[in-house]
Amino acid sequence: MAKQTPRTLSGFMELLPAPQRQMERIMEILRETYSLYGFTPLDTPVIESSEVLLAKGGGETEKQIYRFQKGEADLSLRFDLTVPLAKYVALHYNDLTFPFRRFQIGKVYRGERAQRGRFREFYQADIDVIGDGRLSVFNEAEIPAIIYRTFSALGLKRFLIRVNNRKILNGFYAMLNLSERSQDIMRTVDKLDKIGPEKVEAILTGDLGVSREQALEILSFISINGENEAVLARLETWQGRNETFDCGLAELKTVVKHLGGFGVPAENFAVDLTIARGLDYYTGTVYETVLLDHPEIGSVCSGGRYDNLAEYYTDKQLPGVGISIGLTRLFYVLGEQGMLNPELPTAPADVLILPMTEDLSAAIAFATELRDNGVRTQLHCEEKKFKQKISYADKLGIPYVVFLGEDEIRAGVVACKDMATGEQTKLDSKATIYRIKAGLDARNRGFVIKG
Amino acid sequence: MAKQTPRTLSGFMELLPAPQRQMERIMEILRETYSLYGFTPLDTPVIESSEVLLAKGGGETEKQIYRFQKGEADLSLRFDLTVPLAKYVALHYNDLTFPFRRFQIGKVYRGERAQRGRFREFYQADIDVIGDGRLSVFNEAEIPAIIYRTFSALGLKRFLIRVNNRKILNGFYAMLNLSERSQDIMRTVDKLDKIGPEKVEAILTGDLGVSREQALEILSFISINGENEAVLARLETWQGRNETFDCGLAELKTVVKHLGGFGVPAENFAVDLTIARGLDYYTGTVYETVLLDHPEIGSVCSGGRYDNLAEYYTDKQLPGVGISIGLTRLFYVLGEQGMLNPELPTAPADVLILPMTEDLSAAIAFATELRDNGVRTQLHCEEKKFKQKISYADKLGIPYVVFLGEDEIRAGVVACKDMATGEQTKLDSKATIYRIKAGLDARNRGFVIKG
Repeated sequence: MAKQTPRTLSGFMELLPAPQRQMERIMEILRETYSLYGFTPLDTPVIESSEVLLAKGGGETEKQIYRFQKGEADLSLRFDLTVPLAKYVALHYNDLTFPFRRFQIGKVYRGERAQRGRFREFYQADIDVIGDGRLSVFNEAEIPAIIYRTFSALGLKRFLIRVNNRKILNGFYAMLNLSERSQDIMRTVDKLDKIGPEKVEAILTGDLGVSREQALEILSFISINGENEAVLARLETWQGRNETFDCGLAELKTVVKHLGGFGVPAENFAVDLTIARGLDYYTGTVYETVLLDHPEIGSVCSGGRYDNLAEYYTDKQLPGVGISIGLTRLFYVLGEQGMLNPELPTAPADVLILPMTEDLSAAIAFATELRDNGVRTQLHCEEKKFKQKISYADKLGIPYVVFLGEDEIRAGVVACKDMATGEQTKLDSKATIYRIKAGLDARNRGFVIKG
Repeated sequence: MAKQTPRTLSGFMELLPAPQRQMERIMEILRETYSLYGFTPLDTPVIESSEVLLAKGGGETEKQIYRFQKGEADLSLRFDLTVPLAKYVALHYNDLTFPFRRFQIGKVYRGERAQRGRFREFYQADIDVIGDGRLSVFNEAEIPAIIYRTFSALGLKRFLIRVNNRKILNGFYAMLNLSERSQDIMRTVDKLDKIGPEKVEAILTGDLGVSREQALEILSFISINGENEAVLARLETWQGRNETFDCGLAELKTVVKHLGGFGVPAENFAVDLTIARGLDYYTGTVYETVLLDHPEIGSVCSGGRYDNLAEYYTDKQLPGVGISIGLTRLFYVLGEQGMLNPELPTAPADVLILPMTEDLSAAIAFATELRDNGVRTQLHCEEKKFKQKISYADKLGIPYVVFLGEDEIRAGVVACKDMATGEQTKLDSKATIYRIKAGLDARNRGFVIKG
């Protein structure tokens, strides 16, 4: 029979079992941490009607969208989790209670040019808080706490949550009478890290027609940095000249003020006036999160405050604040950088039982007892040599191997080998399970990411 | 601005937050239970190259497949998790250790005619054990134990795992010299429950050209039922006439023999000679699982033994055994039948904190302490009336509301109201958390399905 060569599409991540276990761990930690902040899990279809999904129309992403006909229907695969959320909230508005806090971890699709570390199918892990009509700035203040707990729970230490407020930027440009050009200016300023101040100035005074004086004030403004209190003090010198600016500064102060109470250490947080986030719809606090030892990979968790989640679907004013982790890309980078903790078990089972007698009753009974105690157990009953079975445990990294021969069964004990130390015990089943569980606890204690 | 009416495609399940929590619970239980048997989680792309996915070609499903062009590529959405598994195992053969045990819970796509309770996007929850060259029948014997533990962990009691063996059927038809027509005969016999013995006999003697004598022997054969031992005894009367039959009977005996050791009660298991499973590729034990109080919904967990998982991709002989739960449909039916336990909490948070002072420090500190203790906590800091905030907790079913006013803060206590009993305590934070956790434990004790 002619064979079809098996392959996986390029740009689609397909992990081997051991890294997949690590990925599952990360997703579990995200689910747990998001839940601790009162976010409820949500799941929406991968496919939506194109007219619904693309209601906003146009934009950079449209070319990348997986769009196709099925029968009469014009369908598209979701390209983020925000548009489906907007649809969900508008559609189910009457059944939801606001503020509505949801998290969603799901695959999204963008037919980008395939390149190393870029994926066409990738997980996003989003949280959003949606208000009905209004939403307190307090929600913006809580976001850094969530980011901090999430990355800490993963094991990261050297990361920085950078925060800015769009109102400060908008107000500042209004003071300079540059409001109409502020979007373009911010897009340019956003590139400061990449292209440097000279090129930024050149673009500002060139294409954007900003005076040299204004350009210097813009550069001086965005170069404000240092301790949070010092930055806030510098910003206060502009206070009283523009209402939007003052409002943004007050919001930023609220965000900074609560950090301590939320347990976010000063070294993991910085006010940074250079970040604006590309998207137009952010209106208040904006967030980026960088790994301090890997700034080259950019932000691994971004988001911000917006005033109108679902304007394409409803007249309701639905302000919100949210963040998104590009999980697939993050996982890829962590792997590339050797940051995934290899000490954590990735075996499919905790215990491999090798029955040494024809009658399997004792082996099955012990397997059932282990499983009743939450220990992941595999019985190896294939017709293989003893050595091959040991090698099976070895290759998969199964930490314990149990032998049940006639002698053990007669004596009412279980022979159990710790594959890491080679130590072998012969204890009754209860004591064996106790020992195994203690050993597993110790093995699972580490973080998934090497901070 | 013109609005696009938000809608979700028909045939696509999109749950409100409370049922979604129940769905998440079910998935978590499946992940946990599958893991206890040494299955490793796997995740494969939703999109595959059409030539790879449809290598087998033809068949009923092909019309239902979501297939489309993106640039030059001919792509398809997966319609089950078995073909992607075959591709995965063939592609990564050298990196896998056999027997390879994986579970996968993922969405699959079939553009079926939309009808009540039928979905075009639905979750399948699969486990498979794949051998390299050979695979012991022991794996087939373990499957009922996995089904039993899975459904028991969900809370179901009145379900029946029905088991048959294709070799017994094939051997039986060989004895009657009906091997060539056996596929058609089995397809007909499979409909016994639906159309009754007369119509089965009519089809057999009509379209299929079976003699009346043979038809009666077939009907008498498939009507064998009763206690497992009695069924096996009846089957033994045919022993010695056909090798395949004898082999199938020996396998069936192995499966039945281990049930007790695995803790599967007799009332949850039955040998049933009428089931054959539609798919052609099953070669040994086959499984169906029915809810005894809802036989009309058919099998909720099916599968079987096959001899050649990946014959379209590789020359390697890869026998396996697997089962699949049609999760979305099962969830839909459970909801329709009122079988989802409404006692289990579905709120996004366990505790809602209402700060009663302008200074939020104490509220934030207590929220952080609760979260450190694994309690899902939401701070309600919106500008709303007290009554509205209480009503928020009520609507969402948040079990505890905490009030932090000046009096409490000064006294170093926390006022905490149990929303179910109305009982309110004023204790220090540690004692409050202890009480809340005990209450949550009690609330979460139930099963997700009302058995």
